[in-house]
Amino acid sequence: MSRTTRLARVSVPPIAQAGRWAALYDGRHGPLADCSQAVPNRPPPPELAERLARAALEPAIARYGDILGDPALRAAYAAHVSARYGAPVDPARVAITSGCNQAFFAAMLALAGPGDAVILPAPWYFNHQMTLDMLGVDARALPLDAASGFLPDPAALDALIDERTRAVVLVSPNNPTGAVYPDALLADILALCARRGVVLVLDETYRDFLAEEARPHSLFGRREAEDHLVALYSFSKTYAIPGHRVGALIGGAALVAELEKAIDCIQICAPRPAQAALPWAIEALGDFRRASAAEIGRRGEAIRDAFAPLSGWRIRQIGAYFAYVEHPFGDEPSAAVAARLAEAFGVVVLPGSFFGPGQERFLRIAFANVEEPAIREIARRLALASPALDASA
Amino acid sequence: MSRTTRLARVSVPPIAQAGRWAALYDGRHGPLADCSQAVPNRPPPPELAERLARAALEPAIARYGDILGDPALRAAYAAHVSARYGAPVDPARVAITSGCNQAFFAAMLALAGPGDAVILPAPWYFNHQMTLDMLGVDARALPLDAASGFLPDPAALDALIDERTRAVVLVSPNNPTGAVYPDALLADILALCARRGVVLVLDETYRDFLAEEARPHSLFGRREAEDHLVALYSFSKTYAIPGHRVGALIGGAALVAELEKAIDCIQICAPRPAQAALPWAIEALGDFRRASAAEIGRRGEAIRDAFAPLSGWRIRQIGAYFAYVEHPFGDEPSAAVAARLAEAFGVVVLPGSFFGPGQERFLRIAFANVEEPAIREIARRLALASPALDASA
Repeated sequence: MSRTTRLARVSVPPIAQAGRWAALYDGRHGPLADCSQAVPNRPPPPELAERLARAALEPAIARYGDILGDPALRAAYAAHVSARYGAPVDPARVAITSGCNQAFFAAMLALAGPGDAVILPAPWYFNHQMTLDMLGVDARALPLDAASGFLPDPAALDALIDERTRAVVLVSPNNPTGAVYPDALLADILALCARRGVVLVLDETYRDFLAEEARPHSLFGRREAEDHLVALYSFSKTYAIPGHRVGALIGGAALVAELEKAIDCIQICAPRPAQAALPWAIEALGDFRRASAAEIGRRGEAIRDAFAPLSGWRIRQIGAYFAYVEHPFGDEPSAAVAARLAEAFGVVVLPGSFFGPGQERFLRIAFANVEEPAIREIARRLALASPALDASA
Repeated sequence: MSRTTRLARVSVPPIAQAGRWAALYDGRHGPLADCSQAVPNRPPPPELAERLARAALEPAIARYGDILGDPALRAAYAAHVSARYGAPVDPARVAITSGCNQAFFAAMLALAGPGDAVILPAPWYFNHQMTLDMLGVDARALPLDAASGFLPDPAALDALIDERTRAVVLVSPNNPTGAVYPDALLADILALCARRGVVLVLDETYRDFLAEEARPHSLFGRREAEDHLVALYSFSKTYAIPGHRVGALIGGAALVAELEKAIDCIQICAPRPAQAALPWAIEALGDFRRASAAEIGRRGEAIRDAFAPLSGWRIRQIGAYFAYVEHPFGDEPSAAVAARLAEAFGVVVLPGSFFGPGQERFLRIAFANVEEPAIREIARRLALASPALDASA
């Protein structure tokens, strides 16, 4: 189109940009270490792949399904959440989406419109900000400090809410920082949202990489939840099937009923073969989930160990999937740093600038993507790239 | 949520509503005849199902894909369209979506926003109007006449375009009327759109139910196409795989590049097993496509024959999938008529009121869903239901 589209002012998708940097790496230091997009580096369990294949052979699965998701999956996910969080969640409060980005997109269509504001702590997840931009909603930043572990201060949040504010978005475990929000903080913020008449939208994409024994939070059992909590989830990361595109949203029953309109227009229904296989996976793959979480925990230890001796580099927060690190290149823009690390050293990470204002000193490393030897290799290359060392050594 | 959401003013999804009427039918006249949603009533070809299953077993397919679609599918679809329409279409102009509703949704995100207007000839496809409503775009109706076969008049269209207008949406073969728009009319409207600086969005979901020998239109070969044409398509109906959710959009290369932002936020990428199988299907399933089109042509003849003797009923337009019929119940609202036909006679059709203003005298029958004996049975039950006959006979 010759004239500017409505999307012109929206940022370019960051992952694609990182891929363009990575494509320029010539392999001189060994294989590419891709810690940009959060991508499970193992295949789905074979029994799950076989069930996905069997579902694809069933004529009934090739047909349209219910807009809000297959009843069996809504029920299985509601039961799983009820058990995991120790609070009853009715299947009528579950909507199945094509991944967690879509769950957020649909929630924003319901909750906010042009002229409204939604609060995003910064650093934020870039697709949240892009979604708000393309819907004409004001994305209002709540700046977070590295010194406080990138956790939001409820008083600062309270001060930012005004009559235009419709929602507060939190991500825990956090993307990009990795911070795991304490239950008490989440409960305070839910109560604050209820008091101020706004909705807390909580993105829990990375929840299953926490130890499964501990419940992530108590919010589903609180009285404010029905009217003031929307929780988002992704089956992609947990079961290593992002290509199958299935996520979920839990909200008040009235909100979920309204979401039927949005999901109908966005795609009619989520793809059905994975919907057919997931009720079994939720039930049967507990060991797989726990093994993945344990492995990612070990990788977290490995990156802490590997960074400890690295001159000038500092892990400022780390959690269930990501490390958010301060780079040693001073005032150099983070995108220039990330581009150089990808192109010259084959280490693909995302620059802080992709995650909002005030992030130029940071890089996000999706360490959970790569195995322990690759984590040590990344640290070796970062040492090579660092200003304090002789890069030609 | 206790307060009204932004979706409150958007209509309820019609198909779900029709399903609720159908659920009240007690079977007294025999099996339900569901002509509400346009749903292929045959399974996908076994060779396609097997390829979908094999794709689900491949670890690479379980991973995220390119936002705009797998390169192989973009190339295969571009080549297919180039051959079918006799005009070269570059793969860079193709975006793969989760079905045709999503192609429309993404196109509207790019082309229009709050304060803008988009023209929909009425009767319209309800998801188009719902999408505009939820995006805050003014859906401006261009009323169509049964007497002119529900085809738009370019002069009336021209008069409706103003400085707020960003796009004109046409559907050919039409949903709900079945009208197949003549090439000369489409070419006139594309030229008009170019002259007035707006975009023609042409939804061709039902294109493959036309005879494959004839090209649907000449627009891709016209110089206005790059900047003023967006064409939407669905793989769901053609290959009988709506549960797999894959559609496509062809637009100018610049628009498609911008759409990467929208599709990233809506779902990251379309589901990948079907994307992996479709390049083969496009190439190998020409006979299946042609057989489906021929069968639907026969069903169209059957419904003409069955309606000819029906007192008070009149087919006002009919085409590649739908018949748009005038009912004999006078001033009774079309939704009341459709509810009664579903609940008391097991004939599920959609009321004209679902398709915009001025449609109360009409019903949409998705005759292509059902086989010829069922079409005759539908006519028998409509005769029973008709006011001129004794309904208790």
